[in-house]
Amino acid sequence: MIDTATALELVLLHGSKQTEIIEISLKDALDHVLAEDVISRIDLPPFRQSAMDGYALSNTNSLTYSLIGEIQAGDSVNPNLKIGEAVRIFTGAPVPDTANVVVMQEKVVISGDTILVNGSLVSDMNIRTKGEQIKIGDIALNKGTIVKGVHIGFLASLGVVKVRVYKKPSIAIVVTGNELVRPGSVLSYGEIYESNGAMLTSVLEELGYNRTTVIAIKDDLNKTIKTLKDTINDYDIMIVTGGVSVGDYDFVGKALEVIGVQKIFHGVKQKPGKPLFFGKKERTSIFGLPGNPAAALTCFYIYVYPLLKKYEGAQQVNLTSVTLPLLNDYTVLGSRAQFLKARLQGSGVEVLTGQSSAMVKSIVEANVLVFLPEHSSNKKKGENVKTILLPNK
Amino acid sequence: MIDTATALELVLLHGSKQTEIIEISLKDALDHVLAEDVISRIDLPPFRQSAMDGYALSNTNSLTYSLIGEIQAGDSVNPNLKIGEAVRIFTGAPVPDTANVVVMQEKVVISGDTILVNGSLVSDMNIRTKGEQIKIGDIALNKGTIVKGVHIGFLASLGVVKVRVYKKPSIAIVVTGNELVRPGSVLSYGEIYESNGAMLTSVLEELGYNRTTVIAIKDDLNKTIKTLKDTINDYDIMIVTGGVSVGDYDFVGKALEVIGVQKIFHGVKQKPGKPLFFGKKERTSIFGLPGNPAAALTCFYIYVYPLLKKYEGAQQVNLTSVTLPLLNDYTVLGSRAQFLKARLQGSGVEVLTGQSSAMVKSIVEANVLVFLPEHSSNKKKGENVKTILLPNK
Repeated sequence: MIDTATALELVLLHGSKQTEIIEISLKDALDHVLAEDVISRIDLPPFRQSAMDGYALSNTNSLTYSLIGEIQAGDSVNPNLKIGEAVRIFTGAPVPDTANVVVMQEKVVISGDTILVNGSLVSDMNIRTKGEQIKIGDIALNKGTIVKGVHIGFLASLGVVKVRVYKKPSIAIVVTGNELVRPGSVLSYGEIYESNGAMLTSVLEELGYNRTTVIAIKDDLNKTIKTLKDTINDYDIMIVTGGVSVGDYDFVGKALEVIGVQKIFHGVKQKPGKPLFFGKKERTSIFGLPGNPAAALTCFYIYVYPLLKKYEGAQQVNLTSVTLPLLNDYTVLGSRAQFLKARLQGSGVEVLTGQSSAMVKSIVEANVLVFLPEHSSNKKKGENVKTILLPNK
Repeated sequence: MIDTATALELVLLHGSKQTEIIEISLKDALDHVLAEDVISRIDLPPFRQSAMDGYALSNTNSLTYSLIGEIQAGDSVNPNLKIGEAVRIFTGAPVPDTANVVVMQEKVVISGDTILVNGSLVSDMNIRTKGEQIKIGDIALNKGTIVKGVHIGFLASLGVVKVRVYKKPSIAIVVTGNELVRPGSVLSYGEIYESNGAMLTSVLEELGYNRTTVIAIKDDLNKTIKTLKDTINDYDIMIVTGGVSVGDYDFVGKALEVIGVQKIFHGVKQKPGKPLFFGKKERTSIFGLPGNPAAALTCFYIYVYPLLKKYEGAQQVNLTSVTLPLLNDYTVLGSRAQFLKARLQGSGVEVLTGQSSAMVKSIVEANVLVFLPEHSSNKKKGENVKTILLPNK
């Protein structure tokens, strides 16, 4: 068995990468990855802009100025201010080239067409200089940026209407097990409801992956071989849950071998997720995740998420991790590396009760995973631990 | 002007609340709020379940047992084990009522139809007891839960196919300003691209709100009155950006008054977002946010997000906040409360450069907001600060 770092390295090394670039409307770009740098075609702001409601003038060390007009936001005027002249100006309006100061209205006394400035004048005060946010020709967002709502706002402010992004992967979730029954049916003795398909489909949907297909297979070697063989070429990423241990009826590993999937690894020194499988066949990357929902979801975040992001060319492929103090003691069982369901709250991170792979309750409550490396000793409250932030929590 | 705590309190007190409950498919429930407790109709697991591939037996302090059969996951059998008998069993399979131990296969030596157990036997070992995750009649998820992917998985595992949730609000974003031009057009001098509509639409989409309409209004009092009057009754929540200061051409406040919107407050002792407006008219809650994108987005997360969640009946209406050490010094300017764009990274939180309301770059990079109360003194590296986790970052 390999360790967690090697496993992730192998996933990122062997996992396939999207080459197809598509151009889409900016408004549809949420959660896509930019396939090229976006260069600004404008200065932002595109002109010297008033940051205040007030008065624009050319500072001459005088405190009295004659008002010669006004400029609203959106006005296309650029009056020539002579010495001693000022214009009324509003937030967002263009500051005349001949002005070097905007005085906020609260610091001015008006008397007819004359204003008296109450306070000192400093060059460029309350003026947003042209291009202070970004200059024409500068990179607005780098290739590899995962586009979020705030990026869409930023690009809209630069006048961008279309972006080139990597096409998202097609994903299949293969659920295996004779004991699995679709929700809505009645359970017989020995059966449970299939939930990994629904869970992973929804977690993928949260991340912006909407092209997910769920395929259910019973524990039968020939059926497993046939189904996987018939479908594997249709997907960029195939996630199999269950059937990846070494039990007599865990047919997935055997079936993948028969259909010519190259095994990259099978088994990682970790808890949960020891039987994790990763392989590839032509353009398809194949994960075998444990059947237990909490273990499957943990492996999804630690290994599948980075491959999805690598596939799409993202700069940051792993979830953000930080180092934070534990809020409670934790007794380490065994020597494998551990991903613990935990909650970032208060002034640190609390490891939740119910770490068993089968326990769904703790993964429901978790908003982070705490990573403890192999052979970790028991952890005391206050010790710093690596904390992996889960998305959409 | 009121303080930030009072402002949030007033928003939550006066903001409207959804009463319409709809029943939807579990698979469509992402980001909806549960309108009632979901009660489990099954025990989970529904039967005593093997946690291992191994051998089920009734412990008699003997280490030798005769194999009388096998039970796969999904089998509906419950063999009657006599003293000294064992069955081969696989992970997820039902453990016979007459067995009280599952021995993992690695601890057994097989010789013909006899197994020799190598190790000690402890009652109930490797058996998941019936209902250990949840019992029939227990609450699986509480009313007010915001449904995420992991919740969908959990409910699917209980056989749930439909849930009752609150209907999501209809939302309008009203963008105001003569200077605003749609992306895709060419800018004249004095004009900028309108981006708050695209940004807030996308940020709402990230949060699962897909029924958002953008309405653009020029700076003209009569047009503003007419447009707001004609549309306000169509929306549960109206978010106006820009036009909420007290400038001569900030028509929104006047127009809202004319059409009979009850002002709850206008102005909060905070930075950014001093001119924040909140009001209501019948079922519609109306926010007036600053026109600057970064300031608008900050006010969105601090005030609009909680109202959206309150509207939908969520238990937790505010974003999660934690107390974490600063990674850098920060010099406080002014006495107003501040929401600082910051990044949770390393072993704490770094306040980003470029805190000006107009600066989009820092809000693009931020994954948290740091809250400094009114009259805060300068902050030193290592001091603990209230850190608000931004969603979808």
